[in-house]
Amino acid sequence: MNKTKIQIRPRLRVIFGENIALGPGKAELLELLEETGSITKAARKMKMSYMRAWSLIRTMNHCFKAPIVVSKHGGAHGGGGAKLTDDGRQILQLYKKMNDQCLRSVRPAQRQLEKLLCR
Amino acid sequence: MNKTKIQIRPRLRVIFGENIALGPGKAELLELLEETGSITKAARKMKMSYMRAWSLIRTMNHCFKAPIVVSKHGGAHGGGGAKLTDDGRQILQLYKKMNDQCLRSVRPAQRQLEKLLCR
Repeated sequence: MNKTKIQIRPRLRVIFGENIALGPGKAELLELLEETGSITKAARKMKMSYMRAWSLIRTMNHCFKAPIVVSKHGGAHGGGGAKLTDDGRQILQLYKKMNDQCLRSVRPAQRQLEKLLCR
Repeated sequence: MNKTKIQIRPRLRVIFGENIALGPGKAELLELLEETGSITKAARKMKMSYMRAWSLIRTMNHCFKAPIVVSKHGGAHGGGGAKLTDDGRQILQLYKKMNDQCLRSVRPAQRQLEKLLCR
């Protein structure tokens, strides 16, 4: 019997006081920033404005002790890009780890749920 | 030293083909439906329209083998309310179980994250 599989997407939010210190959007932004080395490029890939991306980064920098993202001061014309700090990378890794652990932990219940879904 | 605690909110989505078979909004709706015995009342508590609530229920009823919600045919004027089926209750319990298991599984990473947050 060919049961249709389901997919679980944890969209963990880390709430810190009034703020969402970290969530799926912020984690994706950090990941793309690491990949592209630029807030502009990362924002574009997420189809959000630079201002929106910067506001997410500001919230993270505000919640965590040390800055998560710093500018690289590389090229001329202020086009030096940005990169994750060591803390930024650690925070992203911890978020991914929580995601993986969550997915692993729900598997037995997930299988029970699958039995109740249409084929 | 008094470290500020963070709170993790898993917002698990159960993806089934093109549909979100279950997620935080649908689970809350089921819970309120169980509590109030009425789609109208449950929708009002979530500040959503009856039509929106009904559309969420329709998606669930479409994804799962057996109906999740049935009308109670109680009072006159079609005001008989609605209730969860046995499958509906089981599905809600499994979703809550997944939430709890997820929260438990991320605790060690959560504690590491807490150390990086502002006090």
